[in-house]
Amino acid sequence: MRKVILSVAVSLDGFIEGPNGEYDWCFTDQDYSLKEFFKRFDTIFVGRKTYEMSSEMEGGPAGFPKFKEYIFSTTLDKVKEGATLIKGGIKTEVEKIKKESGKDIWLFGGAGLTTSLMNLGLVDELSLTVYPILLGGGKPLFNNIQDRIKLSLVDTKTYSTGMVSLTYTVGQK
Amino acid sequence: MRKVILSVAVSLDGFIEGPNGEYDWCFTDQDYSLKEFFKRFDTIFVGRKTYEMSSEMEGGPAGFPKFKEYIFSTTLDKVKEGATLIKGGIKTEVEKIKKESGKDIWLFGGAGLTTSLMNLGLVDELSLTVYPILLGGGKPLFNNIQDRIKLSLVDTKTYSTGMVSLTYTVGQK
Repeated sequence: MRKVILSVAVSLDGFIEGPNGEYDWCFTDQDYSLKEFFKRFDTIFVGRKTYEMSSEMEGGPAGFPKFKEYIFSTTLDKVKEGATLIKGGIKTEVEKIKKESGKDIWLFGGAGLTTSLMNLGLVDELSLTVYPILLGGGKPLFNNIQDRIKLSLVDTKTYSTGMVSLTYTVGQK
Repeated sequence: MRKVILSVAVSLDGFIEGPNGEYDWCFTDQDYSLKEFFKRFDTIFVGRKTYEMSSEMEGGPAGFPKFKEYIFSTTLDKVKEGATLIKGGIKTEVEKIKKESGKDIWLFGGAGLTTSLMNLGLVDELSLTVYPILLGGGKPLFNNIQDRIKLSLVDTKTYSTGMVSLTYTVGQK
């Protein structure tokens, strides 16, 4: 079955955006291969806010390969051509998509969708790239997680710039 | 000069205690040597709440070696014998202690003291032991950090239980 993988950059204090929506702290690292990363996926899950921010761009945010996109929103009535809108019944819909053939699914965020999918037990793996900075405030990656969620560490990778990738499967081994 | 080192266990979502003050998720790891860890320090900095929680115990929390203790509080008038109360002028007092001879200083917390010392630029190193769990709520390690604080990764260590130690110096290399 395809996996849903939350893969995101986060500050050491757990924010995915600074207090004013800043992303400028997410420097690129020459050792970090986006190309390798992208190979694993052919589909992305996008929340409404993230979609609206990036809807001008073809096929997802700039520099992304052409993914099959699913937009999750209870308020939108239509989304751009080629993308699929999921308005409700998230659990059923996501379980159906996971059973389809294909590569893994990148949970691109944002925070609201992440929380919903985490609480529904639909996320299989977390891959956090921790940046060496404290932002002091902003949008937290995890918000309103209802219960404790135990994780199993499967991989760590350290980059010369001070980025650390931590990869966990959801649940205990 | 002696360093002030924040060394603490934290959940992947950045909490040092669960929603009801729980610590039960902080399992011990046989590979993690507290004895080695303690060797580096001869002094601890303790906030008022943490002090009150652990003041019954001789020389600090259970199982700790005998440290020189500094208790930070604006409200207490006295502390137990052998400990030193710091009521104000934190920056001056801490800078003085850092210049004294001795081993490094363990910033044992809690969250309030951590924030104060971080914002005053008095913390030299962060050593976070990240546990493989999302607690969903509780007491965040970092709270009210005023400005961005850049860090430099100096070490990572991965344990078989899924704990990851991340060590940073404060400031950019």
